[in-house]
Amino acid sequence: MTGAGTLYGIGVGPGDPELMTLKAARLVAAVPVIAYPAANGQASLARAIAAAHIRPAAEEIAIDLPMQTDRAPARAAYAAAAGQITRQLAAGRDVAVLCEGDPFFYGSFMYLFALLAVDYRSEVVPGVTSLSACAAALARPLVARNEVLKVLPAPLPAERLEAELRTTEAAAIVKVGRHFDKVCAVLRRLGLAGQSAVISAATRNDERVAPLEAIPDGERPYFSTILVYAGQEGW
Amino acid sequence: MTGAGTLYGIGVGPGDPELMTLKAARLVAAVPVIAYPAANGQASLARAIAAAHIRPAAEEIAIDLPMQTDRAPARAAYAAAAGQITRQLAAGRDVAVLCEGDPFFYGSFMYLFALLAVDYRSEVVPGVTSLSACAAALARPLVARNEVLKVLPAPLPAERLEAELRTTEAAAIVKVGRHFDKVCAVLRRLGLAGQSAVISAATRNDERVAPLEAIPDGERPYFSTILVYAGQEGW
Repeated sequence: MTGAGTLYGIGVGPGDPELMTLKAARLVAAVPVIAYPAANGQASLARAIAAAHIRPAAEEIAIDLPMQTDRAPARAAYAAAAGQITRQLAAGRDVAVLCEGDPFFYGSFMYLFALLAVDYRSEVVPGVTSLSACAAALARPLVARNEVLKVLPAPLPAERLEAELRTTEAAAIVKVGRHFDKVCAVLRRLGLAGQSAVISAATRNDERVAPLEAIPDGERPYFSTILVYAGQEGW
Repeated sequence: MTGAGTLYGIGVGPGDPELMTLKAARLVAAVPVIAYPAANGQASLARAIAAAHIRPAAEEIAIDLPMQTDRAPARAAYAAAAGQITRQLAAGRDVAVLCEGDPFFYGSFMYLFALLAVDYRSEVVPGVTSLSACAAALARPLVARNEVLKVLPAPLPAERLEAELRTTEAAAIVKVGRHFDKVCAVLRRLGLAGQSAVISAATRNDERVAPLEAIPDGERPYFSTILVYAGQEGW
C-alpha cells in the first residue's frame, strides 16, 4: 500500500544487548512504533534487550501473551495486537516488532507476520539465536564439517526424540520447560547423558552452564537448552 | 596466562555489514590484531563484512586456505596461522579472528580454537547464521512451535539425506556446492522439490531467492542453501 508503513520483525538476539545487530539498533532507534511480547503481563525480555535504543517518544504496544500450552488465548492476543499494528501501518507509521533471538526461528513473530504481511510491506531482520549463544557459552562448537545438527523441541513424544537422537551427530533440545525429566530419561537410555550440557540464559547476567549429569536431582532448569554431542569426530 | 592476550572468535554475520552485532563491531575496532580466512588467496568475505570497523593501524593476518576437499592443506594453513597468532597473544596483544556467520556453526574457527584455547583466554562472539539470513530473505519462518529442524550438509550420502528428510518438518541443506544434482534427485524422489527454495548470498548485494523447481536445468547454484518445508502445519 502506497503511503502505508512497513512492518519490521526485528531479532534482538539472545539476551546480551550488545548482541543486537547494528541494523536492529538503527531500526529500533528510527521507528515511531515499537511492539513486543510481554508474557503474563510481566516485563518484556525483548524490550529490555533493546531498551537503550528505544526513543522516549516512541509509541509502544505491549502484546500481553498468556503463557499456557493452549494456543487459543495467544492467538487472540496476537489478533488484537495485529489490529493495533494495522492502525499504525495504515496511518503511514513503521512498526518494529521486537523478537528474542531470531524472528523466524521458533519465534512468535510469525503469527503477526501471517496476519499482516499480505497487506503491508514487511522486512525481517535476522538475529543471533539462542543456539549460537549456547555454543559460545559452552565454548564448544555446535557442529562442524559434515555433521548433522537436529533442533528438537522437548515437547515431542519420547519415542520421536529417541529416534532422532539415535541418528545424529549433534542436537539442540529446545523448549525444555517441564519436559526436563522426559528428555533426561531419553538421553540416559541412549547413553548420551554424559555428552550433554544444559545452558540457561545464555549471554545474560544469570547465564548458567552445566554438564547434564551435574544438575542436582529435583532441580528443573526450566528456561534452558540442552546441547547433545552424540557422535562427533575429532579434528 | 597472565599478561597474555585474548583470542576472540567473532561472528560477523551472513554478509550484510549491518548484520554484525554491536559487540563484534566494538571488538573489531578495539583489537590490535585481526585474522581472517582468505580462500585461495582471494579477498576475504569476513574481512569485507567487517572492513568499516578495522583500524588502519591494525595488524592483519590473512589465513590462506586452499579450497579443496582434502583437509590436510587446510590443517597446515591453520597450524601456520596458529603460530602467528600465538606470537601475538604471547606478546600480550588481543587477536580477533573474523568468521562469516557464527564461529561455532560449521565455522573453521574451531580449528584455531582447538589449537589455541587450551593455552590462552578465549571468547566466542556469536553471530547471525546464514540460516537465519536465508529464512529472512525467503520471508518464510524457518521453523515454529514443535517442529523439528534438521541441518543437513549436502556432501552426505543420498541415502542419509533421504532418511533424514523423510522424518522432519523442516530442513536446511547447507554446503550445496557440487552436490546440487544429488540433492535435487533426493528431493524429487521424496516429492519435496515443490516445497523447497534455493537461497544464494542471503543479505548480500547479489542475494538470489528462487523455488527449487525454477532453477534452470544445467544451472548449479554453488554457494547456496536449500530450505525444505517438508511437513509443517499451518497456523
